[in-house]
Amino acid sequence: MNNLPQDVVIKEVGPRDGLQNEKTLIDLDYKIDMINQLSNSGLSYIEITSFVHPKWIPQLQDAVDVAKKIDRRDDVTYAALVPNMKGLERALEADIDEVSIFMSASESHNQNNINKSIADTYPVLQEVVDEAKASGKSVRGYISTVFGCPYEGDVSVDQVMSVCDRLFSMGIDELSIGDTIGVANPVQVHNVLSTMKERFDENHLALHFHDTRGMALANTLAALQLGFKTFDGSLGGLGGCPYAKGASGNVATDDLVHMLSKMGVNTGVQLDELLKAGQTIESFLDKPLPSKQMELARRM
Amino acid sequence: MNNLPQDVVIKEVGPRDGLQNEKTLIDLDYKIDMINQLSNSGLSYIEITSFVHPKWIPQLQDAVDVAKKIDRRDDVTYAALVPNMKGLERALEADIDEVSIFMSASESHNQNNINKSIADTYPVLQEVVDEAKASGKSVRGYISTVFGCPYEGDVSVDQVMSVCDRLFSMGIDELSIGDTIGVANPVQVHNVLSTMKERFDENHLALHFHDTRGMALANTLAALQLGFKTFDGSLGGLGGCPYAKGASGNVATDDLVHMLSKMGVNTGVQLDELLKAGQTIESFLDKPLPSKQMELARRM
Repeated sequence: MNNLPQDVVIKEVGPRDGLQNEKTLIDLDYKIDMINQLSNSGLSYIEITSFVHPKWIPQLQDAVDVAKKIDRRDDVTYAALVPNMKGLERALEADIDEVSIFMSASESHNQNNINKSIADTYPVLQEVVDEAKASGKSVRGYISTVFGCPYEGDVSVDQVMSVCDRLFSMGIDELSIGDTIGVANPVQVHNVLSTMKERFDENHLALHFHDTRGMALANTLAALQLGFKTFDGSLGGLGGCPYAKGASGNVATDDLVHMLSKMGVNTGVQLDELLKAGQTIESFLDKPLPSKQMELARRM
Repeated sequence: MNNLPQDVVIKEVGPRDGLQNEKTLIDLDYKIDMINQLSNSGLSYIEITSFVHPKWIPQLQDAVDVAKKIDRRDDVTYAALVPNMKGLERALEADIDEVSIFMSASESHNQNNINKSIADTYPVLQEVVDEAKASGKSVRGYISTVFGCPYEGDVSVDQVMSVCDRLFSMGIDELSIGDTIGVANPVQVHNVLSTMKERFDENHLALHFHDTRGMALANTLAALQLGFKTFDGSLGGLGGCPYAKGASGNVATDDLVHMLSKMGVNTGVQLDELLKAGQTIESFLDKPLPSKQMELARRM
């Protein structure tokens, strides 16, 4: 199996994308411990929270405290999701390193998630990107429902490309390609990413897979084979649980790191340190995290 | 993603490899219902039980009854595992279509599993193969610990090839390559299978992946890309459970069929019929089966 990248970057989104799907409100201290442990695992990027209105995601109402109280390492980028100017204001106040913005490739998911049409979302995001850039921050974009939409089903590659074009033209530094509902399969990943590579530099694209149907690592392999080098993961599969209805099912960072390491692809992440961070959250939630590596750790 | 096979064969091993790892003894009626439902799902091959001594696997002590009481379809091959001549006698009496024999690539696993050295296993299996063939039965071989051994760790490809050579020279019709403890990664699968393809016709090789570390579908992709066309699976991931210690973790047939179907690879298997068979066993076990497709079905 030739032409795999030698090094990949793993971006940890568990403290945001994972936690926002956990119903049990987690104590601030546990979040801080978890993020500090993640910081010490060799990860170079952690999305630590979201500055959305607490009304929408009570779990992340402590966003400012999280950002201010964690121990920051110079070699780690601490990012946070920001939906609008109000969120950006709080994020800047909390001195976030990188700002993430998000929207969907499909009209109806965008409408349901952001409460705006795609066309009406662009100017809101443009304002955030401009202001973040003016404040010296880099910006990451997320595009959801790239491989399928819960309302519309298939999403055309043309539609996806049109939103990607617009996001890059706003001035974002990286775009994370999301399989929001975990429907992508390796052939589809190959096809969509091949088209994307024709238009964009894959060094500015990341993959954000969900494991809802068990295909996240197979999809990762398909992306690696095309030379993609940046992958999002959620610690322990946080936010997804096989026994909870409506689980989001982010691919587990630890399972991702484990596979890559076994394949000889370097991530710079120490699996055992990741698992300690997972155990911190498991001890608070008092339930097992769904990843395979956390399962194996519990058997030790 | 070119050169994927258009059609693959899925071999269902849940009633044997899955059930032998379930502690709760399952009523004969439920097993029969499950196998009949599997028969009606479009599967062309079901390993229905094992004729090992009941002392070793009490779950499968009803092997003869299972074989005699299921409804057999002409378009389905009903196979069973056989460890020795005594087992073969019972299997022939029960009119099994195909006989499976098994051994390990690694000395210590073979010793622990079969209680014999590899050298001492060959003549036992040769006798079984000869007698099965003389009785007009086809024979499938299983080779365990191909990608790693719980006692020895790495297993050399030379050692694997030597056991494969010997098994084929016995006259077996197909060999199933087992990742018994679920440690294989896609690069390793690519490398080992590339070597195997140089010596053997891949149409006589099957892949038997376990999902212990979540890599089974990624490994399946790696094997498909090399043109391999036969894959074993266990209904619903039967026999493996994320919350049970020592779970074996066969890849779930339903997750495998789902992925292949989404990739445009034909299996001939109807997913909804598979899930009905899974629900039959779930209703007896009164616990969820671990596959993603069964999880999604429970949410409906």
